[in-house]
Amino acid sequence: MAQFKRIAVIGAGLIGGSVLLAAARRGLAGSLACWSRSESSRATLRAFNVAEVFESAAECVKEADLVVVTTPVDTAEATFAAIAPALSPGAVVTDAGSVKVAILLAARRLPAVNPFIGAHPMAGGEKAGASHASASLFEKRVCFITPSGQDDPRALDRVRTFWKELGSTLTETDAAKHDEIVAAISHLPHAAAAALMLAVMDQPGFRLEASGQGLRDATRIAAGEENLWVGILLANARHTAEGLRAVEQRAAQLRQAIESQDAATLRQLLAEARIARQSLDRNA
Amino acid sequence: MAQFKRIAVIGAGLIGGSVLLAAARRGLAGSLACWSRSESSRATLRAFNVAEVFESAAECVKEADLVVVTTPVDTAEATFAAIAPALSPGAVVTDAGSVKVAILLAARRLPAVNPFIGAHPMAGGEKAGASHASASLFEKRVCFITPSGQDDPRALDRVRTFWKELGSTLTETDAAKHDEIVAAISHLPHAAAAALMLAVMDQPGFRLEASGQGLRDATRIAAGEENLWVGILLANARHTAEGLRAVEQRAAQLRQAIESQDAATLRQLLAEARIARQSLDRNA
Repeated sequence: MAQFKRIAVIGAGLIGGSVLLAAARRGLAGSLACWSRSESSRATLRAFNVAEVFESAAECVKEADLVVVTTPVDTAEATFAAIAPALSPGAVVTDAGSVKVAILLAARRLPAVNPFIGAHPMAGGEKAGASHASASLFEKRVCFITPSGQDDPRALDRVRTFWKELGSTLTETDAAKHDEIVAAISHLPHAAAAALMLAVMDQPGFRLEASGQGLRDATRIAAGEENLWVGILLANARHTAEGLRAVEQRAAQLRQAIESQDAATLRQLLAEARIARQSLDRNA
Repeated sequence: MAQFKRIAVIGAGLIGGSVLLAAARRGLAGSLACWSRSESSRATLRAFNVAEVFESAAECVKEADLVVVTTPVDTAEATFAAIAPALSPGAVVTDAGSVKVAILLAARRLPAVNPFIGAHPMAGGEKAGASHASASLFEKRVCFITPSGQDDPRALDRVRTFWKELGSTLTETDAAKHDEIVAAISHLPHAAAAALMLAVMDQPGFRLEASGQGLRDATRIAAGEENLWVGILLANARHTAEGLRAVEQRAAQLRQAIESQDAATLRQLLAEARIARQSLDRNA
């Protein structure tokens, strides 16, 4: 049974396109609508043949009872401002941004009659764009829901239902805590993988043709689209910068142990890293 | 047709065990012999049922015309000293160590009648031990051969044949250049992945249960066995320390761009990293 009358997806790239495909497969809404800024994305979305494709974000949200904003995080405020006048009274708004405090602040642009409940599905990857969308993108992946503590209970329930129906495993926490968590498990690893890739390129011994799976895995996420990540890292600047400082310090510790041929310290540091890394696999 | 009369593998863990399985499958030698320091490894090797298993390294190398040393790099000198008195005149010695200058120096312990040709198959991984050995470990993987420039041509040819027959793609370079290359593509990524894993653990927001594939990939190689890696990093100290310094500098550059909300610089750095990372995939 359709849980929603009409779902509008605003900014349909990898995440938004996958929301459309997953919602269509599960029959989550009576109808689907979407908007993308670029004509090439709109052409991809039309080819999905699951949603009405709009050239105006405001037109797209009319009649929807659930609006899912999936534009890059640094455009959230402009997006909210663009759709605000056209939202149906009572329509619930959620999003999929990788940071939550900044978006919660941007959501003040929405009318008081349109509750906003932030969300962040931990899905995606280094291949951006609607052409990489998949109906199974959210399955068994963590999705953060970030209630403000003063939310309309019915709106919160609608947003929980929506992300859960797409296959996500829900985790609830406030926006500030969310940003601290994803800095550690996602934003810092991204920035550190970029730092490693740049450092490897700097080395006189770097030979593309000799590089293997170890280097490829360690740097895979650095292939992510930079415009998306500039917005994310700057919107979560404090935590990400703290994390990078820790990388600098830990790299310096390892370097100093190597320079002084201090096998005991080096062994201790590598053993701590190994044990921590193995605990990630036990959780997988 | 068997290319060798008898191959002896000294120190049979993941690499040595895989050499035995691969050589047996390909019928590379009339007979195979191996030695491991630990009784549990010897039990694993006996269960392979492809080689005579010895409790003494010296006993093991008698009668062999090719000896493959696969002990950890920091024990190379002691291993060469232990087998030197028992080598057949003319027997060729090769190895599989991840550093080459230090091992070339250690090989001075071998008799003048036993040519040493260093090698480094870029295979392995974070799962150590003979129990993870595989006959296909070397297939289509780069194997460095590091001639000194003054080698016996017949010995060099024998060693090339051996590693090639195991399925490797040979790359020849001198020991010093080898060490510079593997610092960039292997030793630095290992140390940097450990630094990232330690830094992530340091973060107040770290939640094991929320961590995903991005963090797991970026840190996978940090699960490697520390005793092996202490030897490697200390034996290639100068290049690895230089690489870690570059990681510190690149992480600091990214951090400063984030702290000063300098989107242009951050975008430029992330774009350079993305382009470099994508070039690794084109080479895969």
